[in-house]
Amino acid sequence: MANEALKVLPLGGLGEVGKNMMVLETEQDIVVIDAGVLFPEDDMPGIDIVIPNIDYLVENLDRVRAILVTHGHEDHIGALPHIMEALPVPIYAPGMAMALIRNKLRERRVLREADLNIVKSGEVFKFGTTFEAEWFDVCHSIPDAMGIALRTPLGTVIHTGDFRLDNDPTIGEPTDFGRMAEIAADGVFLLMADSTYAENEGYSGSDREVAQTLHDIIGNAEGRVLVASFASQIARIQMVADAAEAHGRRLAIVGRSMVNNLKISRDLGHLKIKDETLISARDALGLPDHRVIYMNTGAQGEPQSALARMATGTHNDVDIREDDTVIISATPIPGNETSVSNLINNLVEQGAHVVTHNTRNVHVHGHAAREELRVIHNLLQPRHFVPIHGEYRMLRAHVDLAIEHGVHQDDAFLLQDGDVLRLTEDTAEVVEKIPAGHVFIHGHGVWDERGNVIVERRLLARDGFVTVILGRDSNGKVVGRPKIVSSGFVHFLEADTLFKDAIDELTAVLDQESGKSLQWNEVEATVKKTVARFFSQRTRRRPTIIPVAFDV
Amino acid sequence: MANEALKVLPLGGLGEVGKNMMVLETEQDIVVIDAGVLFPEDDMPGIDIVIPNIDYLVENLDRVRAILVTHGHEDHIGALPHIMEALPVPIYAPGMAMALIRNKLRERRVLREADLNIVKSGEVFKFGTTFEAEWFDVCHSIPDAMGIALRTPLGTVIHTGDFRLDNDPTIGEPTDFGRMAEIAADGVFLLMADSTYAENEGYSGSDREVAQTLHDIIGNAEGRVLVASFASQIARIQMVADAAEAHGRRLAIVGRSMVNNLKISRDLGHLKIKDETLISARDALGLPDHRVIYMNTGAQGEPQSALARMATGTHNDVDIREDDTVIISATPIPGNETSVSNLINNLVEQGAHVVTHNTRNVHVHGHAAREELRVIHNLLQPRHFVPIHGEYRMLRAHVDLAIEHGVHQDDAFLLQDGDVLRLTEDTAEVVEKIPAGHVFIHGHGVWDERGNVIVERRLLARDGFVTVILGRDSNGKVVGRPKIVSSGFVHFLEADTLFKDAIDELTAVLDQESGKSLQWNEVEATVKKTVARFFSQRTRRRPTIIPVAFDV
Repeated sequence: MANEALKVLPLGGLGEVGKNMMVLETEQDIVVIDAGVLFPEDDMPGIDIVIPNIDYLVENLDRVRAILVTHGHEDHIGALPHIMEALPVPIYAPGMAMALIRNKLRERRVLREADLNIVKSGEVFKFGTTFEAEWFDVCHSIPDAMGIALRTPLGTVIHTGDFRLDNDPTIGEPTDFGRMAEIAADGVFLLMADSTYAENEGYSGSDREVAQTLHDIIGNAEGRVLVASFASQIARIQMVADAAEAHGRRLAIVGRSMVNNLKISRDLGHLKIKDETLISARDALGLPDHRVIYMNTGAQGEPQSALARMATGTHNDVDIREDDTVIISATPIPGNETSVSNLINNLVEQGAHVVTHNTRNVHVHGHAAREELRVIHNLLQPRHFVPIHGEYRMLRAHVDLAIEHGVHQDDAFLLQDGDVLRLTEDTAEVVEKIPAGHVFIHGHGVWDERGNVIVERRLLARDGFVTVILGRDSNGKVVGRPKIVSSGFVHFLEADTLFKDAIDELTAVLDQESGKSLQWNEVEATVKKTVARFFSQRTRRRPTIIPVAFDV
Repeated sequence: MANEALKVLPLGGLGEVGKNMMVLETEQDIVVIDAGVLFPEDDMPGIDIVIPNIDYLVENLDRVRAILVTHGHEDHIGALPHIMEALPVPIYAPGMAMALIRNKLRERRVLREADLNIVKSGEVFKFGTTFEAEWFDVCHSIPDAMGIALRTPLGTVIHTGDFRLDNDPTIGEPTDFGRMAEIAADGVFLLMADSTYAENEGYSGSDREVAQTLHDIIGNAEGRVLVASFASQIARIQMVADAAEAHGRRLAIVGRSMVNNLKISRDLGHLKIKDETLISARDALGLPDHRVIYMNTGAQGEPQSALARMATGTHNDVDIREDDTVIISATPIPGNETSVSNLINNLVEQGAHVVTHNTRNVHVHGHAAREELRVIHNLLQPRHFVPIHGEYRMLRAHVDLAIEHGVHQDDAFLLQDGDVLRLTEDTAEVVEKIPAGHVFIHGHGVWDERGNVIVERRLLARDGFVTVILGRDSNGKVVGRPKIVSSGFVHFLEADTLFKDAIDELTAVLDQESGKSLQWNEVEATVKKTVARFFSQRTRRRPTIIPVAFDV
């Protein structure tokens, strides 16, 4: 055992919020914890989703024993359908997560090949000869959220998943301090804990308070009430259903993903809602305003969501009316501030009263704030610490907190995606860096960061493009008059004159050089330079310029 | 006078934050208040700035008497250099604003033609036969900020400009309640007041508190201190200079715009800083860490700013060091949250301690919150009210506040850009809508919202493009093999095979149709349809497709 080593290789989620994937490796075995997506940011135009780079796992496929899932959020399970083919290993997940994974795999038609194993808290599974895993309950904003205790040759590793401490969660179990304490009794070799709110002092707050606020607002509303949240916020659906029943309203769930999740959660027994409380969105239109609550997605202002379409009057079933109360029961994910703001403007313009987390306590986030993190550090007293799930500054804040609470500064590691931390009984060091960048998915296209597509799109968005077509004879000489087409570059009324002048200029330059015997790549370079300079002078803009030879 | 009418025509700033421009019109005269820019948003790729549409003013040029400026911020003066040629009318502005305007006009080489008039608070100017204007001091985040009282045939109109109430502004005058009360003594026919923070309860806070916080942080810092703010935040420069002098540090101002504003403000006597306090950024490198404060722009995370370059190690003079304290003395402008967050991540990664408005009171914004707005409404008791400067929801919140404070609901108008409000002694109604959309500027290009360029860029960013070049003989028939070039669409390793297959498919389709005598536009339609369908099936993406005929 003295020679054993444990490697910790984050492939996603460290240095970013999203696409979580953590790898643990011994000489004999590899296990992967979570396989999530990142939603594309402004500088990734056209991209559907971003997944982790799994090249390292594919290269070591013979040792990869399983993917262990902590809970069913997209940033923890969303990559599974995209990596299954290259990484055909068993998946272990809690019930709610597994139901969502099944849906995803079915949609991608890869369900039949999958080896799916539902886990319950307290059960122990062996992975290869060196890993043994036990899932334990944590409280998060989706039912069946769990952390994982991994027994390794070097000692116990605890991965919290996403968690917070709430003594009164509306559904699901509170974080299981008791079991964590038992697991920690023999010492924790390594703690990996959620850092998403590690910069925020205090506590994340309780579902109980949010439930009371929703109850009050719905009780006082005179017209219809619409509550927008995330589809995966199952507890929020329960709170709204409870308030509906208390105030004699019926609840209409709008939007495919939320309806799906409602069904899954009721089937699994997570949601307790009477059948007669629920009503379809269309049937709800026949009820008096004060007898209805709509609940829908779109709390992030996503332009295609039910709520955004209601707010612009383009939803098929539901409109927004004067004196509707709209509760945005969520906070904007970083990057979505503008779309949420636009949504609120549209709702207010339709005459709705809009309630947000800025004015009332209508949302509690799913991640532990600093006081909650302190509880976990004091309880587990880990020897080594690696903060997970967060941007650099969040990880930094969590490392500082860990050191304040007893981790030696040489044993706290601020890793980023791709860093390989090697731990032995006596040593702990970052030994190498493996590929762990973004993998972009758009339609059937899968590109890593070295690809040309994203870079080209950014340039096209900024200045548009110009294609310059040149006739070429069998001697490789330019013949005829060049032609220009473009997009995103110039107003169509100005294009004819501008392009005529550009072609005149280009023709003059090419005529001057026609005596020289140029290679075609030299001709192309001349065309690019001449046209770029001409347009820069005339327009002060720098379109992408693409010369093409057309053999005549 | 019974027949007199006053028209209120907002051309910018109502329904948005930025490009402020308000027009007041009688039968004889027109005056314009402010001419600002809007900084481009995410859905305006490549655009330098956005200015108001001034078509209406150009059509009525013979009656436009002047542009009256309230203060020197970009969103109030930034459009002046771009509209001067089409709208060659006198400009009236307070001293600081005029100094900034002069700089702008000089840079665009239109200074010589300009008729510039500096105004002081309390002075009265006549504009045509029906308008008389008096500027009065308000407190805002730039010196020489003023509101305007306009005497019209129908009574007094008050335009607050941007303002807040602060009894201890670091520089500049407090908002002049006394003069406002005198002006209001005969009644206020119309109030137009800043709505930017009309959703925020309470007070905006005081410079005094921010100065104290900066003093404390700088006093306790062991290494260097960097303070990031806006170039126009002159008061913040004074606070930091005061703290520098108190703690034996020297102050290095970094960045062209902040250095310019420092010079202007010192020349005008707004800044009181000893010569020996100031030092160049380069010379400051020779001082011990605890003897330096850098102050720079870049508090919005702008990638080209001094601070962003320091944070990524690409600034020529200044790097970020372990144990630097960086104070972000600003809040993110909506839309900039992500870039500010990236900036902080980069700074933390370099080892800096970052202080933001989230953790310490290091910024006070420049706009009145609701308690301050109540003071103004109670003081002025206007007959009519039009909220200005804000998105729809801010204007809505301000209208509601005005009605609570005594404006009759039929006399409070939630206008948006382009609405024409006509007021007479007895009537008040919105009578028409004039063009008031965005005018985009990119390089020498000036496009309104009906232009093709922005729309094309959005499509190019999403899916890239494909140019299909077809040989055409003198009979208008396709000859030879088509050729495809593209950008932003496909990975370069996949392009050859994909394009070969597409051309094969296209050639087969064109061969089938070669018997028919098709017009060229029919050929183009076939090419577009065939290629679009092929790529959609193969890639699940929809690039912009541009067929071109090349005559051979």
